[in-house]
Amino acid sequence: MIEYVMAAKNGRTIPKEDKIFGISNRANAMIDEKGKDAVINATIGALLDDNGDLMVLSSIDETFRKLTPSEYAAYAPIAGIPAFRKAVVKAALGKYEPKGYVEAVATPGGTGSIRNTMSVYTEPGDTVLTSDWFWAPYRTIASEIGRKLDTFVFFNDERKFNIASFEEKVLELLEKQEHLVIILNTPAHNPTGYSLTIEDWEGVVAVLNKVPADKKVALLIDVAYIDFAGDEDEYRKFLPVLERLPNHVLPIIGYSASKTLTAYGMRCGAMICLAPTKEIASEFKSMGEFASRGSWSNCSKAGQSVMARIYADEELQARVTKERAEIRDMLLRRGKAFEEEAKKIGLVTVPFDAGFFVSIPCDDPDAVAAKLEEKGIFIVPLAKGVRVSVASVSEEKCKLLPAEIKKAIED
Amino acid sequence: MIEYVMAAKNGRTIPKEDKIFGISNRANAMIDEKGKDAVINATIGALLDDNGDLMVLSSIDETFRKLTPSEYAAYAPIAGIPAFRKAVVKAALGKYEPKGYVEAVATPGGTGSIRNTMSVYTEPGDTVLTSDWFWAPYRTIASEIGRKLDTFVFFNDERKFNIASFEEKVLELLEKQEHLVIILNTPAHNPTGYSLTIEDWEGVVAVLNKVPADKKVALLIDVAYIDFAGDEDEYRKFLPVLERLPNHVLPIIGYSASKTLTAYGMRCGAMICLAPTKEIASEFKSMGEFASRGSWSNCSKAGQSVMARIYADEELQARVTKERAEIRDMLLRRGKAFEEEAKKIGLVTVPFDAGFFVSIPCDDPDAVAAKLEEKGIFIVPLAKGVRVSVASVSEEKCKLLPAEIKKAIED
Repeated sequence: MIEYVMAAKNGRTIPKEDKIFGISNRANAMIDEKGKDAVINATIGALLDDNGDLMVLSSIDETFRKLTPSEYAAYAPIAGIPAFRKAVVKAALGKYEPKGYVEAVATPGGTGSIRNTMSVYTEPGDTVLTSDWFWAPYRTIASEIGRKLDTFVFFNDERKFNIASFEEKVLELLEKQEHLVIILNTPAHNPTGYSLTIEDWEGVVAVLNKVPADKKVALLIDVAYIDFAGDEDEYRKFLPVLERLPNHVLPIIGYSASKTLTAYGMRCGAMICLAPTKEIASEFKSMGEFASRGSWSNCSKAGQSVMARIYADEELQARVTKERAEIRDMLLRRGKAFEEEAKKIGLVTVPFDAGFFVSIPCDDPDAVAAKLEEKGIFIVPLAKGVRVSVASVSEEKCKLLPAEIKKAIED
Repeated sequence: MIEYVMAAKNGRTIPKEDKIFGISNRANAMIDEKGKDAVINATIGALLDDNGDLMVLSSIDETFRKLTPSEYAAYAPIAGIPAFRKAVVKAALGKYEPKGYVEAVATPGGTGSIRNTMSVYTEPGDTVLTSDWFWAPYRTIASEIGRKLDTFVFFNDERKFNIASFEEKVLELLEKQEHLVIILNTPAHNPTGYSLTIEDWEGVVAVLNKVPADKKVALLIDVAYIDFAGDEDEYRKFLPVLERLPNHVLPIIGYSASKTLTAYGMRCGAMICLAPTKEIASEFKSMGEFASRGSWSNCSKAGQSVMARIYADEELQARVTKERAEIRDMLLRRGKAFEEEAKKIGLVTVPFDAGFFVSIPCDDPDAVAAKLEEKGIFIVPLAKGVRVSVASVSEEKCKLLPAEIKKAIED
């Protein structure tokens, strides 16, 4: 942790270096020193081929190269260019036709949508709720603007979504505060790979129907990995269930277009509301624009223009979807390979469905990660276990990892 | 102003629409309706040619098109790719060789550097200080994270930088708070076009040497327009003066690389500290990374890669500099044309030196702007006057505008 000299403390605990990016730096240093074959870097949240090289869809690269100067060099409006705002709603919702009022505000990646949702829908000092297995930056985002983070227990003893813990925490927090933001990262949750089932969703909606009428809840569904979980339509079947939420619980979709495009560095995402009334949708847009203007102003235009071009051209859209399905199948094979091998050797993972990551519960995750690093295996230690990115290592390596992790835990 | 429904109030006053982008939208609507010739849109903070089209340096466009997928589609590190961090320091400081410890953290445009500086170097509830002519989003940025904004009087009766008011406000605020962020937007200040002289800077440094030893000040110099003010070396001559600041006053340069590159939509900037000690520089980087991670995560990579390519290639760098000098000369001619015409007809402007904007003090700026809009002239009303973007209209139109503005004020 850093020692404060000039900076204001603000109750923040600041690491000297961001953990995930820090480990990745060490992995790269070892690759430089000992060569690629000596290292398994299973930390990166990006789809890499079996050689560890970034996989970018050729349809996306070609579209990027066609952008005119005004498509990447001019300022975009704060909320995003209109064609992007339309495109990103289609991309996020797929074939689902929402009943309510939909608005979209551009954000830099999915992170921006999380940050803006917390800023708009909570007060300083409020607590944000998510599951106890969670993407660590949620806490950074919350604490950076003076919010706290609390967690419910994600899974019960039957390895199912823990609806009882969810209900308890929601109602407990609402006794203390008027506003509550809840973050559910699904499908293909980071870091566990879990996807809420329709049954889980029905439970969530039932609980949120118990929210007292004088309270206001924003339910942020972080769908960063939705297009890497499996069939696009299948994994959007939870959307109609949200229609049964009461008017004082607002569902917001945090969508990462740059992730879906395999162009992570374009920082292109959106926050999308499925609002029950026009005025809630309009407030959402105004507040989102205000939060954006006060943080990063307008968003990078290139990604928005790429999205606009894709959704203006059915043939291109079909090509992008097909190319992504191919690399998604590769990803799903890797996940299955890890899962099967883990089962075979008796390594217990957190309930896994699909996506970039698998998590393994263990004591002292930092020590486990350090032991693996000595062998050139880089994974991310979390509060309750370690995270493996199957997105960034070959199927073959996915089969090798469970045994190494088991050894590091048991040694 | 919006009515709150679901959002948390947080003491924020939120406009239904961002003012500047809102006016620009109305101007575009009128162009669609009545044609280009019926409209003078002097609101846009981007260099447009005499036809109102965006001017992007051809050297930049060519470099953009050469980017490989990994140069735009991969994640950049939170603080920026190393080659960018080196390049942006060179770009911001020019031939000046700093005495202290320099660190750079990538930010989305200049806005990100302002937001992060406020977040890191003040506490919630603190007041940030800037001049009474100021870029309105400073207030948005401050209020979005629960900070206040106060102003000193920019000019005294002799039309000089008002060092007395600056001193009074600095010392007054430091009686109430431990931390203070001061923003000076210079050279070619937005919205007035004023550039602090070396004499002004010596006054500022003398005042800041009076800061009590138990207080901490971050002096953010927002140099968004530094490469559009005139000769690059001439306008960096204030930098050595900063060396005389005491150790508890930290100068931070907020630099907008995307503006210098005429590629505004790339959202590429940096916050750069000129720290007196290694530990202050290291704290600056850690805290900047934390603030970034908690707001937008990593920054868009394309702009960083373009900057890295330019500064790795002397010939390309020379070409970019030459092309920019050409369009800067055009901009300077427009400013002079406006200034001379204003003088001729007796329209008093705020002291102007160079850059994208000229401001004219007046009562009821909203009414003046509304009157001009009826005639198809779009400018931005501020608290104390109106702002004209000479960057976005031809030299010919710059000569016509003073008379129209005078009429609107006097009618």
